Amino acid sequence: MEDEVAEVLRKRVEACRAKDIDGLMALYSPDIVYFDVIAPLQFIGPDEVRRNFLRWFDEYAGPIGLETRDQSVSVNGDVAFVHMLHLDSGTRRNGLELAVWLHATVCLRRIGDQWLITHEHISIPHDPKDWSAVVDATP
Amino acid sequence: MEDEVAEVLRKRVEACRAKDIDGLMALYSPDIVYFDVIAPLQFIGPDEVRRNFLRWFDEYAGPIGLETRDQSVSVNGDVAFVHMLHLDSGTRRNGLELAVWLHATVCLRRIGDQWLITHEHISIPHDPKDWSAVVDATP
Repeated sequence: MEDEVAEVLRKRVEACRAKDIDGLMALYSPDIVYFDVIAPLQFIGPDEVRRNFLRWFDEYAGPIGLETRDQSVSVNGDVAFVHMLHLDSGTRRNGLELAVWLHATVCLRRIGDQWLITHEHISIPHDPKDWSAVVDATP
Repeated sequence: MEDEVAEVLRKRVEACRAKDIDGLMALYSPDIVYFDVIAPLQFIGPDEVRRNFLRWFDEYAGPIGLETRDQSVSVNGDVAFVHMLHLDSGTRRNGLELAVWLHATVCLRRIGDQWLITHEHISIPHDPKDWSAVVDATP
């Protein structure tokens, strides 16, 4: 089962890199609740999540670089959670080259034979001094 | 089982409000990996997590206000995940009254008869325009 869940995570990163919105959305449950690095507080349901992914894809002039580190999978029966760090990189539309470390927690349920993501939480830590985003944190 | 997990979450909020560090740490696993709103990227193990909770407690002149909204519990066998929004409020040591909505994802495993938190992820969304923290987001 751990392999099945890891395979969903592999497809997720691959679809993000390729900006393959349909391949990516196929991994998400109809009742997805998504906490992203940007406001609003929640993206609820596939329509909101899809629009938010397209907004993210559109920030990049080309493909998205997405590396995974320290991935940990916990699974039992039809419930699983995974946490990891991502290095998100690429050329933004304004020409800026950025590489940012992200927190990622992905929670899944098996519906029938299929593992689907029902909750995802992505964030960037802040500097407690001025509450700016810490884009140069390294693990 | 959902009740047992919800009870851990209730104790967690109660211990945070009272700044009861020992009561709070009793809910965390020895292999806890914690992603917080502030850098560094990961707090690994009870010692780092405890120090970070004490840092947070110390920001407040008195008790911490912590309300929970939209809590969702998924559990099967010995694996569970919970996501919710928290309204974190109180008087900071500098006299400032602040109330901030937080993303919270809490992941647990049952070890023997006891549910313990093995992963927690807390964040505040950013404004994509200037990457400042959005402290006035409302659900």
